[in-house]
Amino acid sequence: MPSSLKHLTAVARGEAAPDLVLANGRILNVFTGGFEEANVAVANGLIAGIAPDYQGPRTIDCKGLTISPGLIDAHVHIESSLCTPGEFSRAVTARGVTTVMADPHEIANVCGVQGVVFMHERSQATDLDIKLMAPSCVPACHLETSGADLDAVVLQELHEEGLVHGLAEMMNYPGVFLGDDRCLAILEAFQEEVIDGHAPRLSGKELNAYLATGIGSDHECTTADEALEKLARGMYILIREGTITRDLDALLPIVDEYNRRRICFCTDDRIPDDLLTEGSVDFPVRRAIAGGLDPVAALTMATLNPAEWFGMRDRGAIAPGRRADLVVWRDLESLEPAWVVAGGKVVLDDGKVPDAPDPVSATLPDGVGGTVRIDWGGVDFSVTAPAGVGEATVRVIGSIENQIVTEARHFTLRATDGGLEADPSRDVLKIAMIERHGRKGTMATGFIQGFGLKSGAMAGTIAHDHHNLVVIGASDAAMHTAARAAAELQGGIVVTSESQVLANMPLPVAGLMTDAPMAQVREQYRELQAAASNLGCRMHDPLMAMSFMGLEVIPSLKITDLGLVDVDRFDFVPVVV
Amino acid sequence: MPSSLKHLTAVARGEAAPDLVLANGRILNVFTGGFEEANVAVANGLIAGIAPDYQGPRTIDCKGLTISPGLIDAHVHIESSLCTPGEFSRAVTARGVTTVMADPHEIANVCGVQGVVFMHERSQATDLDIKLMAPSCVPACHLETSGADLDAVVLQELHEEGLVHGLAEMMNYPGVFLGDDRCLAILEAFQEEVIDGHAPRLSGKELNAYLATGIGSDHECTTADEALEKLARGMYILIREGTITRDLDALLPIVDEYNRRRICFCTDDRIPDDLLTEGSVDFPVRRAIAGGLDPVAALTMATLNPAEWFGMRDRGAIAPGRRADLVVWRDLESLEPAWVVAGGKVVLDDGKVPDAPDPVSATLPDGVGGTVRIDWGGVDFSVTAPAGVGEATVRVIGSIENQIVTEARHFTLRATDGGLEADPSRDVLKIAMIERHGRKGTMATGFIQGFGLKSGAMAGTIAHDHHNLVVIGASDAAMHTAARAAAELQGGIVVTSESQVLANMPLPVAGLMTDAPMAQVREQYRELQAAASNLGCRMHDPLMAMSFMGLEVIPSLKITDLGLVDVDRFDFVPVVV
Repeated sequence: MPSSLKHLTAVARGEAAPDLVLANGRILNVFTGGFEEANVAVANGLIAGIAPDYQGPRTIDCKGLTISPGLIDAHVHIESSLCTPGEFSRAVTARGVTTVMADPHEIANVCGVQGVVFMHERSQATDLDIKLMAPSCVPACHLETSGADLDAVVLQELHEEGLVHGLAEMMNYPGVFLGDDRCLAILEAFQEEVIDGHAPRLSGKELNAYLATGIGSDHECTTADEALEKLARGMYILIREGTITRDLDALLPIVDEYNRRRICFCTDDRIPDDLLTEGSVDFPVRRAIAGGLDPVAALTMATLNPAEWFGMRDRGAIAPGRRADLVVWRDLESLEPAWVVAGGKVVLDDGKVPDAPDPVSATLPDGVGGTVRIDWGGVDFSVTAPAGVGEATVRVIGSIENQIVTEARHFTLRATDGGLEADPSRDVLKIAMIERHGRKGTMATGFIQGFGLKSGAMAGTIAHDHHNLVVIGASDAAMHTAARAAAELQGGIVVTSESQVLANMPLPVAGLMTDAPMAQVREQYRELQAAASNLGCRMHDPLMAMSFMGLEVIPSLKITDLGLVDVDRFDFVPVVV
Repeated sequence: MPSSLKHLTAVARGEAAPDLVLANGRILNVFTGGFEEANVAVANGLIAGIAPDYQGPRTIDCKGLTISPGLIDAHVHIESSLCTPGEFSRAVTARGVTTVMADPHEIANVCGVQGVVFMHERSQATDLDIKLMAPSCVPACHLETSGADLDAVVLQELHEEGLVHGLAEMMNYPGVFLGDDRCLAILEAFQEEVIDGHAPRLSGKELNAYLATGIGSDHECTTADEALEKLARGMYILIREGTITRDLDALLPIVDEYNRRRICFCTDDRIPDDLLTEGSVDFPVRRAIAGGLDPVAALTMATLNPAEWFGMRDRGAIAPGRRADLVVWRDLESLEPAWVVAGGKVVLDDGKVPDAPDPVSATLPDGVGGTVRIDWGGVDFSVTAPAGVGEATVRVIGSIENQIVTEARHFTLRATDGGLEADPSRDVLKIAMIERHGRKGTMATGFIQGFGLKSGAMAGTIAHDHHNLVVIGASDAAMHTAARAAAELQGGIVVTSESQVLANMPLPVAGLMTDAPMAQVREQYRELQAAASNLGCRMHDPLMAMSFMGLEVIPSLKITDLGLVDVDRFDFVPVVV
């Protein structure tokens, strides 16, 4: 290793040739807030120096263009892209993103440590530098059956083995501020590391208690007042522009010359369509600039700031000794990259991605493929009516367009042969959650409103956060068809008629992701949406909506494999009132 | 440990009593740049929370006063205070300093690892949080005999044992930018840690090469242009106000709203008189405010900024979960502290230091006491004249008031019995450097001008950076008296007549420090200065000047135990031309 520094110092002195030179660009300096026209010399994947006259075997002329450090997405779940790290990397590096702080929370809930190891191994081959954070809340709580249980000991081992950079968003915020032993043990194990937070609307002394444990960031602020209080109490604010969650407009007004050193950007969850159309974390940067923020400040918030929060002194700026993560922008309004260099490698070359996709092995490692393990003998979508009555009042999950909170509604259904059936004419469908990790063989069935299917069914193995098999249908038969079809894919999303698959998207990796190209995934996703629409669904995105109907830590009425959950009471309730 | 977090969260929630409350103060918020009137609750040495109504068994009313985080001195050699860590701690915590980043470079040059261990152990008992950095340049170079040799392996062990936070100032800057193997091996060992720099006047590609190795700060800037270039290349700038080196006036004009997040303050070297009269790192903060810098910015530069540079997320701000390092200032102009809390303990109470000095054990551990080991048989201050001549031209070190650079002068001296003697009438004195580590028994004698002694001599065991025994005298006999007297103290500084000690200061700890109270040390220092003045010396501080006459990495002519050094040629030269 000293020999590598030796070469780097020789390149810096101008006595050895750099691997690559970005010449004549307008270099953004995140330390001074200014620009400088000079050449950047790259060697060994690092920046050797900045001077007017470096020359190398490959020199890219950046005359008239602006060079910034590579962007850093401060918080993202790669699983939400439905693609594995290689394809995710290709999509976001083309946007100028060179580092992401990734929480493998979804795959960890299915595959446990094997899921984290899988993401780590796949991340070794990507041009994007993917820094994994240890998923802190597996499972989310006791009202569900997830595929794994990661306690403080296991998480600490992940850190000692170098697989994770810090602790990912501590979502169980009531557990933390109330001093829950399991939460505190996990936090205690990461006291010397970066700990990300997740504390929607937490304030006052409860916020004090949450932060007293060493948590240091939040990406859940939705109002300026909330963000200002959290900033004042020491949290880095990660402004999020996800697929559903769009917080920039509310939070941009708080940014001032004093506090902006503590503000970053993140995407959290973005589906393929948004990644390919709007972009990744470049999207909030572009929107912030369009909203009037000084481009230097906006780009600093996406580079130096997250580098500082995560203690990564090796990136986030164009300076000697730092990683050669560089973006040559055509201009700072469109924020369209012409060249992107990631770790010294040109990954976008005059607007084109130069590489063929990396070859991905067809077989998945143990524990990550074949994750749909269902005991079909126990699968039964019938709901029994109380004995001897002609009708019964049932609790119905009231789904709301573009929200993940639901309403708890009541409906009266007629009993047929002692059972209660879906009533598509009033948009009362059945929803079921089937444990699919081969652990308990549990399942629960209830009723739901808002999806609008006149017939047929939808099913999927993405169901936050436990990712059991969720099914919504107009009849028990259609639900059987959909559930079986999703399982036969060994994970995925399907839309079916009573007996036929109308559209599907296989997600063989943990039932969450695929190795297929992202553009293909986008097409499949559109086909699924179209099929649901043809069945009568009027929702903007029923597939994503379905995936949140099992998230029992978000109000008000949800369903897990263990039963219908009244989130406000944080306990199970019967379907029949 | 979870139980400690559990208590902290209970205090934060208001459900358990804090140990201490600072009530009704105007709390400076380094994140927002604003102030907030509220109560700060302290428990387990940490800040539990900030809210209007916390109450505790001890509540300090701070009405009308301003509370800031405790100050951080970003770079200091405690040895320059001539006092051991306990006494240093008492002096600087009374000024509002609660953390120092200390480079034990001087004691390491005498005692090696045992010196670092000693500083570490003594630091465990201080209220001040002393973070040691690994001394990177022991010895400074090959033209001297120091007491130890710390290579990359040894330094890495110090880090693995948890004794050091990072790597202290890498002073051999030519070695670094030229790719010297020893320097690179040391830097390589600390790539994951904070590495402080020291690169006076380095610029352009040489600066690029220096920084490509991962070095990230500089405290040697003396001009605005130098500081601006280093800032732009990614260095944190530590503005220094030492006893001799006073850089604030030159550097304050560069501070702007964009770059100030990367600027800190430090003291580097301060003698007791300055520490007790002017203060520690509070001194540059006070001067910066007097010079027109926004007090919030100035205090942020002395708190949050160094905490960020050194990756210490646990301090530098008043926020839940951070160390309870708090200063209650009477006002932000005088910057006079009324109360100081360090790690939750009140160390200044309404302007008074509440504690008696800690008891210090009389015996010093192995290797730190008894460090003056001289073979007196080899000590001889005579300088032989060339055979058969009546006079000879000699090289004379030209000492310059208040500078550590010297001039190389020539003088002609008459030969007496084949020897060359000092000539006090023309202020040509003798200077000798005697190896005192018991390693080689080497010594060298030369001539020096500028000290003005008409008779007598001075000697001391502080001689940067090797800390051999330095003697300056008007006659060989007086030099013997002084050298013997300093050695009999087992280290220290003496001023003598031909045969009598006129004043002395014992420095039994490595010949560099004493356990005596700092006020007493200041008195002894003044007595030494008065005694030198009575002998004819007109220098402001001849004792400190003497200590730099052996520092052969600073131009132009210096002396080590191995001979007279022409620094420009970086080699030895004979005394007689």
